[in-house]
Amino acid sequence: MTQRPQENQSHNSYKLWGGRFSEKPNEALQELNNSLPQDARLYADDLDASKAYAEALMRAGHLNATECDKLVKSLEIIRYDWVERLVKFEPSDEDVHTVNERLLVALTGELGKRLHTGRSRNDQVVTDMKLWLRKAIRETLSRLRLLIESIVSQSESHLGVLMPGYTHLQRAQPVQFSHWLLSHAFALREDCQRLAELRERSNVLPLGSGAVAGNPLGIDRIWLAERLGFAAVTGNSMHAVGDRDFVVDFIYCCSMVSLHLSRLAEDLIIYSTKEFDFIKIADSFSSGSSLMPQKRNPDSLELIRGISGLITSNLTGIMMTIKGTPSTYNKDLQFDKQYCFQAFDKLSQSLDVAVGVIETMQVRRDQLEAALSSDMLATDWAYYLVRKGVPFREAHHHIGRVVTLAEQRGVDITEVPLGELQQICAAFGADIASVADYGYNVQQYDAIGGTSTASITEQLRLLKNLDKQLRQQS
Amino acid sequence: MTQRPQENQSHNSYKLWGGRFSEKPNEALQELNNSLPQDARLYADDLDASKAYAEALMRAGHLNATECDKLVKSLEIIRYDWVERLVKFEPSDEDVHTVNERLLVALTGELGKRLHTGRSRNDQVVTDMKLWLRKAIRETLSRLRLLIESIVSQSESHLGVLMPGYTHLQRAQPVQFSHWLLSHAFALREDCQRLAELRERSNVLPLGSGAVAGNPLGIDRIWLAERLGFAAVTGNSMHAVGDRDFVVDFIYCCSMVSLHLSRLAEDLIIYSTKEFDFIKIADSFSSGSSLMPQKRNPDSLELIRGISGLITSNLTGIMMTIKGTPSTYNKDLQFDKQYCFQAFDKLSQSLDVAVGVIETMQVRRDQLEAALSSDMLATDWAYYLVRKGVPFREAHHHIGRVVTLAEQRGVDITEVPLGELQQICAAFGADIASVADYGYNVQQYDAIGGTSTASITEQLRLLKNLDKQLRQQS
Amino acid sequence: MTQRPQENQSHNSYKLWGGRFSEKPNEALQELNNSLPQDARLYADDLDASKAYAEALMRAGHLNATECDKLVKSLEIIRYDWVERLVKFEPSDEDVHTVNERLLVALTGELGKRLHTGRSRNDQVVTDMKLWLRKAIRETLSRLRLLIESIVSQSESHLGVLMPGYTHLQRAQPVQFSHWLLSHAFALREDCQRLAELRERSNVLPLGSGAVAGNPLGIDRIWLAERLGFAAVTGNSMHAVGDRDFVVDFIYCCSMVSLHLSRLAEDLIIYSTKEFDFIKIADSFSSGSSLMPQKRNPDSLELIRGISGLITSNLTGIMMTIKGTPSTYNKDLQFDKQYCFQAFDKLSQSLDVAVGVIETMQVRRDQLEAALSSDMLATDWAYYLVRKGVPFREAHHHIGRVVTLAEQRGVDITEVPLGELQQICAAFGADIASVADYGYNVQQYDAIGGTSTASITEQLRLLKNLDKQLRQQS
Amino acid sequence: MTQRPQENQSHNSYKLWGGRFSEKPNEALQELNNSLPQDARLYADDLDASKAYAEALMRAGHLNATECDKLVKSLEIIRYDWVERLVKFEPSDEDVHTVNERLLVALTGELGKRLHTGRSRNDQVVTDMKLWLRKAIRETLSRLRLLIESIVSQSESHLGVLMPGYTHLQRAQPVQFSHWLLSHAFALREDCQRLAELRERSNVLPLGSGAVAGNPLGIDRIWLAERLGFAAVTGNSMHAVGDRDFVVDFIYCCSMVSLHLSRLAEDLIIYSTKEFDFIKIADSFSSGSSLMPQKRNPDSLELIRGISGLITSNLTGIMMTIKGTPSTYNKDLQFDKQYCFQAFDKLSQSLDVAVGVIETMQVRRDQLEAALSSDMLATDWAYYLVRKGVPFREAHHHIGRVVTLAEQRGVDITEVPLGELQQICAAFGADIASVADYGYNVQQYDAIGGTSTASITEQLRLLKNLDKQLRQQS
Repeated sequence: MTQRPQENQSHNSYKLWGGRFSEKPNEALQELNNSLPQDARLYADDLDASKAYAEALMRAGHLNATECDKLVKSLEIIRYDWVERLVKFEPSDEDVHTVNERLLVALTGELGKRLHTGRSRNDQVVTDMKLWLRKAIRETLSRLRLLIESIVSQSESHLGVLMPGYTHLQRAQPVQFSHWLLSHAFALREDCQRLAELRERSNVLPLGSGAVAGNPLGIDRIWLAERLGFAAVTGNSMHAVGDRDFVVDFIYCCSMVSLHLSRLAEDLIIYSTKEFDFIKIADSFSSGSSLMPQKRNPDSLELIRGISGLITSNLTGIMMTIKGTPSTYNKDLQFDKQYCFQAFDKLSQSLDVAVGVIETMQVRRDQLEAALSSDMLATDWAYYLVRKGVPFREAHHHIGRVVTLAEQRGVDITEVPLGELQQICAAFGADIASVADYGYNVQQYDAIGGTSTASITEQLRLLKNLDKQLRQQS
Repeated sequence: MTQRPQENQSHNSYKLWGGRFSEKPNEALQELNNSLPQDARLYADDLDASKAYAEALMRAGHLNATECDKLVKSLEIIRYDWVERLVKFEPSDEDVHTVNERLLVALTGELGKRLHTGRSRNDQVVTDMKLWLRKAIRETLSRLRLLIESIVSQSESHLGVLMPGYTHLQRAQPVQFSHWLLSHAFALREDCQRLAELRERSNVLPLGSGAVAGNPLGIDRIWLAERLGFAAVTGNSMHAVGDRDFVVDFIYCCSMVSLHLSRLAEDLIIYSTKEFDFIKIADSFSSGSSLMPQKRNPDSLELIRGISGLITSNLTGIMMTIKGTPSTYNKDLQFDKQYCFQAFDKLSQSLDVAVGVIETMQVRRDQLEAALSSDMLATDWAYYLVRKGVPFREAHHHIGRVVTLAEQRGVDITEVPLGELQQICAAFGADIASVADYGYNVQQYDAIGGTSTASITEQLRLLKNLDKQLRQQS
Repeated sequence: MTQRPQENQSHNSYKLWGGRFSEKPNEALQELNNSLPQDARLYADDLDASKAYAEALMRAGHLNATECDKLVKSLEIIRYDWVERLVKFEPSDEDVHTVNERLLVALTGELGKRLHTGRSRNDQVVTDMKLWLRKAIRETLSRLRLLIESIVSQSESHLGVLMPGYTHLQRAQPVQFSHWLLSHAFALREDCQRLAELRERSNVLPLGSGAVAGNPLGIDRIWLAERLGFAAVTGNSMHAVGDRDFVVDFIYCCSMVSLHLSRLAEDLIIYSTKEFDFIKIADSFSSGSSLMPQKRNPDSLELIRGISGLITSNLTGIMMTIKGTPSTYNKDLQFDKQYCFQAFDKLSQSLDVAVGVIETMQVRRDQLEAALSSDMLATDWAYYLVRKGVPFREAHHHIGRVVTLAEQRGVDITEVPLGELQQICAAFGADIASVADYGYNVQQYDAIGGTSTASITEQLRLLKNLDKQLRQQS
Repeated sequence: MTQRPQENQSHNSYKLWGGRFSEKPNEALQELNNSLPQDARLYADDLDASKAYAEALMRAGHLNATECDKLVKSLEIIRYDWVERLVKFEPSDEDVHTVNERLLVALTGELGKRLHTGRSRNDQVVTDMKLWLRKAIRETLSRLRLLIESIVSQSESHLGVLMPGYTHLQRAQPVQFSHWLLSHAFALREDCQRLAELRERSNVLPLGSGAVAGNPLGIDRIWLAERLGFAAVTGNSMHAVGDRDFVVDFIYCCSMVSLHLSRLAEDLIIYSTKEFDFIKIADSFSSGSSLMPQKRNPDSLELIRGISGLITSNLTGIMMTIKGTPSTYNKDLQFDKQYCFQAFDKLSQSLDVAVGVIETMQVRRDQLEAALSSDMLATDWAYYLVRKGVPFREAHHHIGRVVTLAEQRGVDITEVPLGELQQICAAFGADIASVADYGYNVQQYDAIGGTSTASITEQLRLLKNLDKQLRQQS
C-alpha cells in the first residue's frame, strides 16, 4: 500500500462545503452532527453508486473514458481499504460521503473533485440507503426463512402430539402441538410477504435528483437505474430528496416481525414454567441466577420479548422525527440511519436466537398430553347434541350446565351419569361415551387450516413452498 | 313493522354463553368490556358474513334450503332495522354479534340458534373486520384520489410560476411552484400503492377457523371465500383467530398518509405567514381570534398537522397492546377496533379538509417570484465554471467565496465586477452575465423528476394515470 | 324556564370572531375543528373561571358591582342548564367557551359581551383545563386508594399463606402470598406520589396571560389565583398560553398506573390458568365463549392488560403532536383534551375493574402451597453452606450441582443421600435436613421489605398510613 | 501494576452461575444478552455499592474487619483499573457485575467469592442504576442551568427590542424579543422542577432485597441507605427488584426537555429563514451544502428538533418493554439501560448545542422591528373602544371590519380616515391616532407575565434565582 499517497496528512480538513464560511463548526455540533459511526456501514453502497455515477457522467460527456476509468478503479482501491480496515477518519469527516470523496481526491487529485458534478449528498445518501436496504431485506428474509424452517422441522417431528389449544390462556380445545407451533410460522410468512412487497415498491432510483431541483447535466437516469439494479426512477426530485418512507416501511416490517416473536416468546416462556412444563429450553439458551443455584431462566425468550419494545421504538421515533418537517431535505432526516440500523441489527440478533431456541428446545410429549382434560371435550359434546338436532346455541347452554355440574362434584364431565345428562338434555344417548377420544376428535377438524393431520400436512406443504421461493430469491 | 315479534321484551338477557356461570357480569366490567359503541358499525359486515355462513351450513347439510332461506331473509330484515335506526340495544348486549344473533332468534326462534354452529366469535369478528377494511381502503383511496386531483389541478393552473426551492427551510434553487406542490402528490401516490397492496395481501378469509381448532362440520371454506369476495382462505386456524396484522397494517398506512399531510401542512403554514406570503388560505379554511380582531389563523392546517400525532398514536397503541400477548385470541385484541376506527375517521376528516384547503387556496405569484434572489443562482454559476473545465468541488468553493464577498458588501452576486470574479477564479468570463435568468435556468433541469416544464408535464401525466386507475378500481 | 329569552333562535350564529371574514367556515373544517364533543365536559370549570374573571374585571374598574353581580348570577343560571341538560348546541358553536359566552349574551345582552375584555380563549382554555385536572387528580387518587385498600385487605386475610416467588416466571424462593400481592400496591403507592407532586407543580394560574402578550387592564392575577385556589401565577404569558406540559404530565401518570395494572393483570392471568390454578377470578369478572361451553375467560384482566396500550398511546400521541410546533398557541394543541380525557376515562374504568377483581377473587391456598418444591430451597441451602464457612459463590456452585443431580435422578434435592452431598461439598452435615421447612425459612427474610411476617406487617402499616393520608386529602 | 495476578488468564470463564448447567451459552444468545457495552458505564456505581455491601456484611458478622478492609481496598484497585482503561473483558463476561466480581476474585481469591452473600444481581443492578441516576440528574440540571443562563443573558442584552408576537405563526401582538426568548426558559424551569422531584422520589435504596424474597442475613438496610446517601429503603423486595419506574421517569423528564428544545428549534429555524431574517445562527452552528455554494443551513437546530423523536422513542420503548411483563425481575428489564443511557446522552448533546446556538446567535433588531405592522395594533384599538364604553365583543367586530377595509384598499389601518372609522363605530375619536406607538403599547402589558419591561425584569429575577439554587445544589 506504500505507493499510494498519504491521504491522511495533506487533506486534513477536506470539506464538501465551506467557501462562504468564516468560522469552523462548533465541537458540540460536530459531535451531534457526526453520522460516521452510523453511516460508515454504507461505504460499499456509496462506492457502488459513485462508480455508476462516474459512468453516467462519462456517458453525458462530462468525463472522458480515461478519466472515468481512473475514478472507477480508484473507487475500487478505496473499497479495498475499507474491507481491510485501512481507512482512517479525520475530525473533519462529516459522513461516509465526505470520507469517500476525500480518499478519492487523495488518489486522483483534481479528477476526484469532478465526481460530485450535478450530484448532491441529498440524492446520494438516499440512493446509498436504498442500495443498503436491498441487502438488509435479503438478509432479513433469509433469517425469517431459517426460523420458519426450524418451526417446520419441529412440527414435522412432532406430528401427532396433542396438547391443549388455549384461548385467553385457558384450555379451549385439543389441538396438535404442530398446529400451535405452525401458527407462528404463518405470522412470519406474512412478514416475508410484506418485505418482498417493500423490496419491489422501494426499488426506484433517486440518484439524479440533485439537491432539490433535479439534474441539468444530461444524466441518463434510466440508464443509471438499470446499472444499479433499480426498476424505475423517482418521479419528482423535491419528493425524492426528502423521502424516507422506504426506511419507515422497513422499520415497520421489522417491528411486525418482532411483535410476532414477542408472542412466540410469551407462549414459550409460559410453556416452560414448572407449572406447564411443556417445553424445555436448552441449557445453551437459558441462564442461571447469581443467587439461586437451582434457577434455569428462559433469558433468551425474555430478551426476544423485551426487544420488541426497542425495535418498535425506532418506528415511533422516526415517525415523530419526520412529523411536521418542511418538505424536501431537512437535517432531522439524518436520524433515519440510527433508527433503521438499530431495528435491523436488533431484529437480526433476535431472529438468530429464536432459530436456536426452536431448534434446540425439547418437546415434552407426556406433559403436553397429560394436560388434556375432559372439559376440553365440551365443544365436541355440543356438536354431538347438534347432530341429534339440538340447535347449537341451546346445545352450548346444556353443555355449560354439564361442565358446572361436574366441576361442583369435582369429577370429569365423562363421569357424569347418563341419567343426569339426560335430565339436562334429553338428546344425550349412550353414544356420548364415544366422544371422548382426543385423538379422534382432533382429526375431525379437517377444514383448511384446522388441526387434523391432513390439514397440518397441507400447512407444512405451504411453508415448504415458501421456503423454496425464498431460497431461489436469495 | 308491527307484525314482527317484540324482540326487546322477551329476550332481555340473550347471551351467547353463560350455561356454566352462576353470577352476572360486574357492571364496571360490562362498561369496560362493552364494544358496541365501537363495533356497531360492523353490523352490515356481520350480516353479510352470516348470510354466507348460513348458505355454507346448508351446503354442508346442516340446514335445509327452507331454513337457510328463512335465515337469509331475516338477516336482511335486521339490516333494514339497522339502516332505519330501529335496533335497540339491551344492557346484556356484549357486541354487535350478540345483537344480531339476538335479533335473529327473536325473528326465527330455534332456527336462529343454529346459525352459530361451528362458528365462534373469534373467527366471526376477524371476518367482519376484513369485510369492513375492504370498504375502508376503498374510501381512503377515493379521498387520496381527490387530494391528488386537487394538487394536480392547482399545479396545472400555475405551470410556469417560479419560486425558491427550499432545503433546510433555506433558499436553495429556483423551482417551479408546481414542482413543489406535486412533490406532495408523489408521497400520496405511494400511500395509494401501500393501500392497494394491503387490499390484496389481507384479502384472505378467516371464517371457518372456529375458536381455535378449526371447523369439523364439512364447511367449504373455499366456497365461502368466493362467496364473500376473498381471494384465498387463511392457512392455520390458530393463527387466524389471533391475527390482527391487517388492522395494524391499515393503521400504519393511515399514519403514513397523516405524516405526509403534516409536512404539506407545515409548508403551507409557513408559506402563509405574513413574512413568506406565498399562499392565502381561504377564509372558509381559516379562523379568527377571540381577542385579536385582525387574526386569520390557518387552523385547518394546524389541525391537519396536529392530528398526525393522534392517528399515529393508534399505531403505537395497537402494537403495544399486541406485544407479548399469548398466541390465538386474547381479549386484549378487542381494542383493535377502537384504534382502527379512530385512525380511519380522523384521517378521513383530515383528507377532506386538505382537499378543501388546496382547492381554495390563492397562489400569490408576485410574492413567490419576488422571493427569488441572486444567491440562488450559485449552483448554476458553479455549473458555469464546470463547463469551463473547473472541477465541480473547486467551482463550489469559488462560488462560495463570491457569495460571501457579495454578502459582505450587501450586493447581489450579479453585481460583483467581473474583474473581482476573475481574481477568485480565472475561468469567469463575460458570459457569466447570461446565467442570471431564473426562468431559463429552471428549464435546464430536464432530467426525469426535475423542475423543467417538460419534466413537470410528465409528472402530471403520471398522476393523471394514477387517477384513472383509482377511478376504475372504486 | 319559560321566562328566559329563547337564546337558541336569535343568536344562531354567535361567533367570537369574524368581523374581518367574508366567507363562512367550511363544513369539513368545522367537523375537524369542533371540539365541543370533547370540551363540553369543561363547562363547569369554564363557568367558575368566568365568574372569577368577572369579579377581577370589577376590581380593576371595568365593571360595576351590579354588572358583575348580574354576570355571576347569569353564569350560575347557565350552570343549572348544563346540569339539567337543557343546553342545546348550535352548528356555529366552536367550543364550550363559545357556548357559554353565547348563552351569557342571550341572558344579559351587551353586558355579556364585556366579559371577554382582556381575556383570550388561549388563557381561558388552559385555565379551564387546570381546574378540571385538579378534580381528575383527586378522583384518580381516590380510585388508587380503593385498589390499594382491596390489595391490603386480601393480603391481611391471607397472611401466612405461602407460594412460590417467581423471577423470570420460574420458581425462585418461597414467599408469602401477601408479599407478592402487596408488591403491586407498592407500585401504585408511587403513582399516588407522582400525582400528588403533579397537583402541586401544576397548581399555577395562567389566566391573565391574554392571547400572548399579557394583560394590559390592571387585572390582579394574584387575587385571581387565590380566588380560584391556585398557589401561584404563571411567570411568562407567551409560555403560559402554549404550555400543555401539565396535561402531558397527567397522561404520563395515567400511563404509569396502567403499566402497573398490566403487570398485575399478567400475573393474575397466569395464576388463574388451569396449570397454575392459584387464583379463581369471580364469575362476575369472567366471560364465557360463544363456541366452547366450558370456558371461563379472565376477560376483565385481559382488558386491563390490553388497555395499557390505549392509555399509553395518548402519551406518545400528545408528545408527537407537540413536537416541533412553534412556541405560544397553535391549533395543534387543541387535541390535548382528547388525549387527556381518554387517558383519564380509560384508566378510571380500568381501576374500577381492578378493584372488583381483587376484592372478589378466590385465593386457592392449597394450590399455592402445593406448588412449593424442594428445589426452591436451593438458596437457603447455599446459605447453610455459607454458615459453615463456604464462600457464597462456591456454595452456589455446589448447590447447583446438587440440583442437577437430583433432576437427573428425578428426585427432590432433599432425597439426595448425605454421602453424595458430602462428595459435592464436605461441609454438608446431617443438619441440612432442618433446612426444609418452607414456613420456617420464609420467616428468616426479616430485613425491611422481606417476606417474613414481621416485615409484611410493616408493609401493611405503611400502606394503611397512605390510605389515611389519601382519605384526608380527598 | 505488575505485582497483581494476571486475572485475564486463569479465570477465563468466571461465571456467577452454572453449577447446574451442562451446556455453554449459545453465541447468538450471548450477543443479544451481553449488556456490557451498555452497563460498563455503571462500573463506579457498582464498586461503590459493593464497598458499602462489604461493610454491611461485616456489621452483620459475615466478614471480619480485615476481610472487609481487603475487599474495600481491592475494589478501589479495580476502580483504578477502570479509570486507567486497564480492564479487559472476557467473552464469558455477562455484565459489569460479573466483571467486577471476576476481578475481585482475581485479586482476593476465596474472599471475593463471599461478597455476593445474600445479594443478587437483581437488587445490585437496580442499586447501581439509582446511584448512576443521581449523577445523571445532577448533570442534566447543570446543562439546563447553562441553557437558561444563556437565554437570560441574551434576553438582558436585548431588553427593549420589539418584535411581532406570533400565535398560529401569524402576527398577533407586539412583544419584546426578550419576552419571547424567556418563554422558552420558563418551560425549562419546570423541567428542572420535574428532575428535582424525581431526585427526591427515587432516592430510596433497593439493596437488601435479594433476588426476590428479601435478605435473611441480618443486613442493616437503613445503615446501608445512609452509607450510600439514600433517604429511605424500599418497602417490598418483590416490588424493588422488578421496579424500573425511576428509569422511566427519568426518560420522561428527558423527553419533556427535548420537546421544549424542539419548539425552541422550530422558532429559531423559522426566524433564521431569509423571509423572517430575525436571527443569524453563527457559522459555527451552521453547515453548508455539498452542491449549493451559497447555503447556510441551521443544521444544529434541525438536529435538536429531530432528535426529540429519538429521545422520546426511548420512552415509548421502555413502556412497551415493561408492559405486560410478570411482576419481579424478568430479563426484558435489561433493556432499561439502553433506553436510559441513549436518552441521557442524546439530551446532553442536544443541550450542549442549544447553549452554543443561543450564546452565539446574532439578533437582528432592525429586522425584528421592521416586521411590526399596524394590523398588530388591532387588539389595542379594540381596548381603545372598550375604554369608550363599547362592549369588548362588539369592539372586536368593529376592528375586524376596519382591518378588512384596510386590507382591501392595501393600506395600513392607521391610514383609514377618521370619518370612515366613525361610520364603522361612532365611538372612534381623533385620539385613536395615539394608539399607534408599539413601544408605548407594549408597556401597558404590565400584569405579571406580560411583555412590559417591568414584567420582564421580574421574569429575569425569577430565573436568576433558579440559577442560584441550581448552582448551590450541584
